[in-house]
Amino acid sequence: MPLQLVLAKRPTGNIIPGETFNLVNIPTPSVKDIPDRHVLVEALYFSVDPAMRGWLDDRRSYIPPVKIGEVMRSLTVSRVLAVASGVTKFQPGDIVTCMLGIQEVGILPESQVDKAFPIAPGSGLKLSDLLGVLGITGLTAYFGMEKIGKVKPGDTVVVSAAAGATGSVAAQLAKLAGAKRVIGIAGGKEKCRLLKEELGLDEALDYKANDFRQKFKEATPDYVDVFFDNVGGEILDLMLSRANAFARFVICGGISQYNNSTHQGPGKYFFNVITQRVRMEGFIVMDYMKEWPEATAKLAKWVSEGKLKRKETLVKGGIKAAEGALQLLFEGKNVGKVVVEVKGPEDPVAKL
Amino acid sequence: MPLQLVLAKRPTGNIIPGETFNLVNIPTPSVKDIPDRHVLVEALYFSVDPAMRGWLDDRRSYIPPVKIGEVMRSLTVSRVLAVASGVTKFQPGDIVTCMLGIQEVGILPESQVDKAFPIAPGSGLKLSDLLGVLGITGLTAYFGMEKIGKVKPGDTVVVSAAAGATGSVAAQLAKLAGAKRVIGIAGGKEKCRLLKEELGLDEALDYKANDFRQKFKEATPDYVDVFFDNVGGEILDLMLSRANAFARFVICGGISQYNNSTHQGPGKYFFNVITQRVRMEGFIVMDYMKEWPEATAKLAKWVSEGKLKRKETLVKGGIKAAEGALQLLFEGKNVGKVVVEVKGPEDPVAKL
Repeated sequence: MPLQLVLAKRPTGNIIPGETFNLVNIPTPSVKDIPDRHVLVEALYFSVDPAMRGWLDDRRSYIPPVKIGEVMRSLTVSRVLAVASGVTKFQPGDIVTCMLGIQEVGILPESQVDKAFPIAPGSGLKLSDLLGVLGITGLTAYFGMEKIGKVKPGDTVVVSAAAGATGSVAAQLAKLAGAKRVIGIAGGKEKCRLLKEELGLDEALDYKANDFRQKFKEATPDYVDVFFDNVGGEILDLMLSRANAFARFVICGGISQYNNSTHQGPGKYFFNVITQRVRMEGFIVMDYMKEWPEATAKLAKWVSEGKLKRKETLVKGGIKAAEGALQLLFEGKNVGKVVVEVKGPEDPVAKL
Repeated sequence: MPLQLVLAKRPTGNIIPGETFNLVNIPTPSVKDIPDRHVLVEALYFSVDPAMRGWLDDRRSYIPPVKIGEVMRSLTVSRVLAVASGVTKFQPGDIVTCMLGIQEVGILPESQVDKAFPIAPGSGLKLSDLLGVLGITGLTAYFGMEKIGKVKPGDTVVVSAAAGATGSVAAQLAKLAGAKRVIGIAGGKEKCRLLKEELGLDEALDYKANDFRQKFKEATPDYVDVFFDNVGGEILDLMLSRANAFARFVICGGISQYNNSTHQGPGKYFFNVITQRVRMEGFIVMDYMKEWPEATAKLAKWVSEGKLKRKETLVKGGIKAAEGALQLLFEGKNVGKVVVEVKGPEDPVAKL
C-alpha cells in the first residue's frame, strides 16, 4: 500500500520527528476511481525547500497553510500512471512536475500538472534538476536577480546561504550578469571552499568564523550594491550597515528565522534604508509563472554550456527519508538542492 | 553683531540645551569681503526638520555630518543683501532659498543659491511655504508618493506622523491620487481631529491610545497597500503585519528612532516582506532635484485651488528660538511644518 506524509501537529519551532508528521498507508488507487480530467501519478523525486517550514504555520501568507491531516505539500517530478477521460495533455509514462505533495501516488486535476521541461540526452541535465536548477530554486534565483537585484556590470553582489540551492545559482547568475565582485556567505570552511573553487565566486566568507564581521567589512571596500538574502536576521542587518547608495536587497528567504516563533528583522542599521536609498523587496517565484518556460530554457542552456554549475544533495530512501531531508536544511547540512529520490526514471512503474 | 548657531558637541540621544549648540556672535560681514561669484544673504525663515538630528551623527549617510564648530545646517528662505562681481542671477532684494544654515547672515557661492518659486499675490501662498508645502517637506511627500508609493485608485494608504509637515501633505496627495481610504496616524486627539476634519482623511488614529493596535486592525479590513513612514520602529512593524500583497512602503523617516543610539528596525513581522511581496524603499528628496520645479508648481496650484491644505507651526523669536524649535519636533508638539521666522519680508533689510 502506498505511503503519504501527513501533517499531524503544527510545530512551534523545529519540526519534531514522530510528532509533526505521520507516515500513513493509503489504499492503492484504482484506475476506475480517477475522476474525469484527472490523472494518476507516481512520485519520482520530492523537492525539499526551506519554504516548506513556512507552510506549516497557520498565518496569512501567499499560500494557505497545510491543514492538519493533509498531505505535506511538495513539488515533485512524477510519472503519469493513468489518465481519465477528458485528459488531453498527458498519457501514461509522461514525466511531469506537479504539487503532488509527499506521497508515493496521487490523483490530480490535469490543470494542476505540467509537462516537464525536456531533458535531452547528452545535455548533462537529469530529472532531479527539474526541481533544482531548472525548478523552483533555480527559478527563484533567476527572478530574484532579474526582477529585483538587477545586477549591473561593476556591482558588488552578496548572497547569503550561498551554498544552498537558490543561493548557489543566484551567486553564479550575478557573475554571468557582469558583477565585479560576488561574495558568498555560507556556514563552514568546506562550503566556502566549494563556492570559490567550484562555483568561481570571488570571495566566500564563513559566517560561523569569529572574525566574520571584520572579514566582511574588508571584503566590501566598495560597499554592497545587491544583496540576495536567504537568511534574514543578523546577516541582513550587517548588509544594511554596508549598503551602497541605491542598493537592491532581494528578500528571498529567512532560514535563520523560520523556526523562531518570533521572527527577528533587521535592527540597528535599518535607518540606512533611508540614507542609502535601499530598495528591499520580497518576491515569490510563483508570481512569474508566465515567464518560467523562457527562464528554464536559459538556465538549461547555461548548465549545458558549463557556465552554470549546480549542486545537489540527493537523499535516497524514498518517502521514509523525506522528513529527515527537511531537517537537513535547517541544520545547514546540505549543499545545493535537497531532493528525495523515490524512484529513478529507470525503475519499474508502479503496479495498479 | 549677527548670530550663528554652531555645533559644540555631538548629542548621543536628545539635543541638550546649552551643550549641543552654541549661539555665537560673528562680525558683520563687509560688502568688500564677498568673493567673486558669491552673494551675501540674510535669513528670513529657517527650516526645522527631523532630518537635522541625523546630520549631527558622525556616520556614513547621504550627506556629511555637520562638523564640530560648524554652523548648523538648515535650508532657509533668505534675501540677497549684496552681490560680488561675476554674479549674474541675483541682485540685492531678491528672495532666494539656500542652505545658509542657522545664521542671521552669510556668504554663499552663487551656484548654491536658488531663486525662490514666485509667490504670486492673491495665490494664498506665503514665503514660509517655500520651506514647507512648496519646499523640502512638501517635495519629500510628493516624490515619496510619486516614485515609491505609486498610489492607485482603490488603494488603502497609511501615513505615520500624519500631522507633521511631510505626513500631512503625503496623506492629502494620496487622496488626490484616488486612494479609497487614507488613514493618518498621529499622537493625540487634537491632531487626529485636525486630520479628519481639516485635512479630510478617512480615518485618523492616535498611536498613544491603549486600543490603538485593535483600532488599526479594524480600520484596515482590506489591509495596507501603501505605507508612508515617517516614524519607524514599532509602527513600521505593525504595518508589516497588515501589509497587502505587493504593498509599497515608502521609508521616508524614522523620528521614533533618531534620538536612539541603537535604532530599532521592523521586528517580528519582517517576514511578511516575502510572503506579501512588499517593496520597502528609502529615498532622499535631493535625488529628484531636477524635477523640483515641476513638482513645486503642481503643489502651488493645488494649494491655491484649495485642494491641498498646509499646516504650519511658525516659531517667532528669530535665531534664538531655533534650538527650541528643533526640540518641538522630537516632542511631537508641532503640527505641520516648523519654521523659525527671523524676519518677515516687510521687515527692514539688515544694515551693512
